Amino acid sequence: MNPGKSSHRPLSDTTRLGLIGLGTVGGGVAEILAKHQDLIVARSGASMEIVRAAVRDVDRVREGAAHHVRLTTKIEDIVSAPDVDIVVELMGGVDAAYKHIRRALENGKPVVTANKAVLAQHGPELYAIAAAHGVDVYFEAAVAGGIPIIRTMREGLAADRITAVRGILNGTTNFVLGLMGEGQSYGEALAEAQRRGYAESDPTIDVNGRDAADKLTILAHLAYGVEVRPQDFPVVGIESLTPEVLRDAHDLGFAVKLLGIAKRVGSSRAMRLDLRVHPTFVPLEHQLASVPGAQNAISVVSDALGQTLYQGPGAGGMPTGSAVVSDLIEAARSLRLGVSGRVKASRKAAMALVDPADARACFYLRFLVDDKPGVLAAITRILADHKISLETVLQRSRCKIDGDVPLLLVTHETTQGAVDAAIQEVKKLRTVRNGHHHVPIMEVM
Amino acid sequence: MNPGKSSHRPLSDTTRLGLIGLGTVGGGVAEILAKHQDLIVARSGASMEIVRAAVRDVDRVREGAAHHVRLTTKIEDIVSAPDVDIVVELMGGVDAAYKHIRRALENGKPVVTANKAVLAQHGPELYAIAAAHGVDVYFEAAVAGGIPIIRTMREGLAADRITAVRGILNGTTNFVLGLMGEGQSYGEALAEAQRRGYAESDPTIDVNGRDAADKLTILAHLAYGVEVRPQDFPVVGIESLTPEVLRDAHDLGFAVKLLGIAKRVGSSRAMRLDLRVHPTFVPLEHQLASVPGAQNAISVVSDALGQTLYQGPGAGGMPTGSAVVSDLIEAARSLRLGVSGRVKASRKAAMALVDPADARACFYLRFLVDDKPGVLAAITRILADHKISLETVLQRSRCKIDGDVPLLLVTHETTQGAVDAAIQEVKKLRTVRNGHHHVPIMEVM
Repeated sequence: MNPGKSSHRPLSDTTRLGLIGLGTVGGGVAEILAKHQDLIVARSGASMEIVRAAVRDVDRVREGAAHHVRLTTKIEDIVSAPDVDIVVELMGGVDAAYKHIRRALENGKPVVTANKAVLAQHGPELYAIAAAHGVDVYFEAAVAGGIPIIRTMREGLAADRITAVRGILNGTTNFVLGLMGEGQSYGEALAEAQRRGYAESDPTIDVNGRDAADKLTILAHLAYGVEVRPQDFPVVGIESLTPEVLRDAHDLGFAVKLLGIAKRVGSSRAMRLDLRVHPTFVPLEHQLASVPGAQNAISVVSDALGQTLYQGPGAGGMPTGSAVVSDLIEAARSLRLGVSGRVKASRKAAMALVDPADARACFYLRFLVDDKPGVLAAITRILADHKISLETVLQRSRCKIDGDVPLLLVTHETTQGAVDAAIQEVKKLRTVRNGHHHVPIMEVM
Repeated sequence: MNPGKSSHRPLSDTTRLGLIGLGTVGGGVAEILAKHQDLIVARSGASMEIVRAAVRDVDRVREGAAHHVRLTTKIEDIVSAPDVDIVVELMGGVDAAYKHIRRALENGKPVVTANKAVLAQHGPELYAIAAAHGVDVYFEAAVAGGIPIIRTMREGLAADRITAVRGILNGTTNFVLGLMGEGQSYGEALAEAQRRGYAESDPTIDVNGRDAADKLTILAHLAYGVEVRPQDFPVVGIESLTPEVLRDAHDLGFAVKLLGIAKRVGSSRAMRLDLRVHPTFVPLEHQLASVPGAQNAISVVSDALGQTLYQGPGAGGMPTGSAVVSDLIEAARSLRLGVSGRVKASRKAAMALVDPADARACFYLRFLVDDKPGVLAAITRILADHKISLETVLQRSRCKIDGDVPLLLVTHETTQGAVDAAIQEVKKLRTVRNGHHHVPIMEVM
């Protein structure tokens, strides 16, 4: 009746933490711990203290609440120290982080991490190692730091069947798209995001969708039990979007958002998982359309609850630090209870992924064409040949670009494969210029 | 170091529940418990069982998972039974529920309740009694059943300073306002809500704002530590709204929502709490404007996180039952840990409420006037006398009602008192007909 009983139960009235990394988030954690011991004692039955921290340079003076911590450069000292009850991994990266998290778990120590990349690559394996050693991996801070989405999916939705998870999982790109919606170019908007501290000096993994894909991988495992990696599904970034596309979107009744989408499709016999990250036309009346600035938001559609939505800051020292501390309290409670509080992946499913070419959606298409008779007929003929029917056709004669005319099309539901094939043929027409765009439209559920 | 240590710790490997009431929610709880024992064992270290239930009529045959429970008509048997570890109060109402919750707490039993009315009237007193006996009161199901707002405010936002909580706290009124936005009358929309099961046969406390006020009272205590009751602040329902007002709102760029608002105002020296429930013009670009159907949504603005938003179903057997079970797991964990997991109201504040007449907002005003020269001048003169300046003036000549013309005004920020006084004067003008409306506009933060 008591699975996951841990042999590693602290005897003292203090829960002792070992931190790997003591940067912005680590400093935030130390500060919150110092300020809120009363809260921590009330909730976990013990105080909580950082006893060791691994850093690159022990001589660098650290300010704030962590100044009395025993510092080391050897991470091995943290993950195997007998006086460390819980390991907090804040070093980032994949390979080294994987090794140390694994070692900590094998030593019977629960791990709290904010590292989405390592979980996207090795999550299910680490969860299994944790379970085998009667402890848990906690990662509220790894996805949308200011939103309690991990806890909600694990606890609130544990007894529910999830149909779709769709989210704005990267704040940088949401901020950039917001400025592009006001007419700024991609480059201008990205520079402004960097000036304001929303984008890293190297924003590559934000703008190319990889960061969102890591988070989607973690959510998909929670929601459906599938063991996939970000390299297993299509990921499209925002780099090739133009202000014209965002203006078209607005005129057609949409906002452009970079969404991570994990959706069950098909009948129960042949259920598949449609998993992808790409810029998406979101209907203006849907809440995801109006998520402002650098915020994140996640919409979950499930059987018992219908649609639920969670929105908040995705990153930042305090949101992420708070998420780590809430995990620490949970971990301390479980440790002292002698239980591994996490639900085993009983719903583990070998659900196959939808072939990207078979992924279904309505699409926005934009072509630059000569303003000559017959062009529209030629294009719609090609679309019809690929069984693509149209909902809206809009030709912007008033805003010519180099003498060419933008032609905007909104299709009825079709497949990514049909759209790709049709575009290849349309591009061969002599009357069609370079510079087309196509963006899937979010399904309203 | 271990406050709230409870003397009432279960010795068995089963957490034993006593339910007061076994209706829709109680049945849902029984069903979830039967289905998800593995989850409950993994998280709380023990199985969970309903051992006793108090009902009105023990002879009525009950179906489903609760059929083997020992039934009684005497609630005293539940709250004092030595074999009951946790009491679940699902009877509703105020006075009797208060008495039984109190008795259970005094007997050292944690209480899980879905009863917003009793908490709105007696919450702080019951929390204090619980604390004195080393146990807790859990009430995730009492506010927005399908949204983990109580847990989020308690845990996620515990270390944060909250500026404002604003929410759509009643699903019935949101559904009715949605239909009125499509042109239906209040009566038609309410009848449709009843047909669909969103409104009770007596919907009074929904439409007059009392249900939302109960929930706002609970949230205000969590957010600010204030001990107020729903009768202490202004509550306006939706009964007097017309489709014309909703159409005006849309034309001016707003949706009409019944909001509960709890907002800090003033400087730190003279901080006050602005607390109210009323129909509100919500800017269309704000997420609260697009909350559909019978859903609830809560926006929290806080120092560390900025704006966070939580949206989901407010009621229903499964959402509410899930919320009760998540509280039960938390309660069982705390019980076995021997801690009262809840944070004491260390932030308890004797913050005074804003005088309703001093509450500040921009306002929408609608008057029916004779279409004669000088009417607008007379009205704007009166407004100016009350120091109310205007942002928008819109006279709808095209849509005359009985020969009169609607005059729509949007004011800059002013006070409720100034608006009330100005309206009294405007109503005395011979050129102004009966049937004015005024609705506050939500502040964008």
